[in-house]
Amino acid sequence: MNLILLYEADFISSDIVRLSGRRLEHIVQVHRAESGQQLRVGLLNGNIGFGQITSLSDQQVELQVGLTKSPPPPPPITLILALPRPKMLKRIIQHVTALGVKKLVLINSYRVEKSYWQTPWLDEEKLFEQCLLGLEQAVDTQMPEILLRKRFKPFVEDELPELSQDSHKLVAHPIGGTVCPVDLRENCTLAIGPEGGFIAYEVEKLKEAGFHSVHLGPRILRVETALPVLVSRLFPSS
Amino acid sequence: MNLILLYEADFISSDIVRLSGRRLEHIVQVHRAESGQQLRVGLLNGNIGFGQITSLSDQQVELQVGLTKSPPPPPPITLILALPRPKMLKRIIQHVTALGVKKLVLINSYRVEKSYWQTPWLDEEKLFEQCLLGLEQAVDTQMPEILLRKRFKPFVEDELPELSQDSHKLVAHPIGGTVCPVDLRENCTLAIGPEGGFIAYEVEKLKEAGFHSVHLGPRILRVETALPVLVSRLFPSS
Repeated sequence: MNLILLYEADFISSDIVRLSGRRLEHIVQVHRAESGQQLRVGLLNGNIGFGQITSLSDQQVELQVGLTKSPPPPPPITLILALPRPKMLKRIIQHVTALGVKKLVLINSYRVEKSYWQTPWLDEEKLFEQCLLGLEQAVDTQMPEILLRKRFKPFVEDELPELSQDSHKLVAHPIGGTVCPVDLRENCTLAIGPEGGFIAYEVEKLKEAGFHSVHLGPRILRVETALPVLVSRLFPSS
Repeated sequence: MNLILLYEADFISSDIVRLSGRRLEHIVQVHRAESGQQLRVGLLNGNIGFGQITSLSDQQVELQVGLTKSPPPPPPITLILALPRPKMLKRIIQHVTALGVKKLVLINSYRVEKSYWQTPWLDEEKLFEQCLLGLEQAVDTQMPEILLRKRFKPFVEDELPELSQDSHKLVAHPIGGTVCPVDLRENCTLAIGPEGGFIAYEVEKLKEAGFHSVHLGPRILRVETALPVLVSRLFPSS
């Protein structure tokens, strides 16, 4: 937790917040904070700044906060990702959020097992929790939007054209295509397949939707490794 | 397993290998292979090519192999990494290997808990296994070398100067420094701290050894996310 995220409901006056639970625990156990100490805080979907501890007990902590700094600008990317298996989903949501992606569409694909869609990790509340962890890690406040699309063809044919309008459209595919470009200066919609990749039919459908196939060289990377590689090569880190 | 790795001991004649165990299982259960089928194989620390199944039973499989292609060229990087906690170590070794790193030094740091050095995952055999998984994933055959250095100061003062000679020396540190460069054309020695980062003293010692501090922008990434980002930004993917 490199940032303590605040909600509107935490405010007991215009500049005082009262926290308990997980955040109090973190402040006490990890920061070993004392009254008077300043901690980095941010308002969910708002600004970042500092909070000074004005009172601290076993039950609650109060901080006087000043939120003057904008959150880091997000990379202008929409990520279309074949639903990973549940074990990886959690980690991938955190990776995606920490990398600053603000729009993620989890889609079906031939190599996505049907059972993956049943995982409780797809519940709105659980996804929100994982995103929070990603934001707290990356010192960001802007919650990403996550869409679930369980049918590949209707999504690609009916929804993707508008979603990817006026953007550089790329599908990461280890075979064929060109090397993934570096440091784009325009919006990008990036599609990443499941472990094992999109099948030829799916790549074809994406190409029909204007997507261009890119690869990362001769090494075939797991989705978990490829994801940070792709996002960070496409957009400069500052 | 995108590549079936072969050992010298698998050869029963100049171009026939006989496999059992984990590789046989994979060939039967994942590839659902049949006699006559061609599979991608590679000799550990040697060439990559194809193996054609000449016989297949419950106990063993025999393949006739031709190994004509060199493994992918590694990025010219030596990675110095503060020992991650055991839970992450396994995954990180796989990431590192899949990204093509051929020299990894796991070092101590103030924020590395002493107990981390006791994990069985640091046994030579276990590290080898994780590296194998990384190579099989990335379609590579060259086993990385992993060094363990349990004392920070002697390593940085006595060993690092020679190890990092004639290379671009970088330490990833979220505070200060310059943005991580892209697509280097020279050797690089990259030091990455533990979760929470190197302490000021350690960064100072690395600077004395000629290291230059680089960051990845305003977002603070977990080691697991930062690692693929750093390696892939430093070196072009093909």
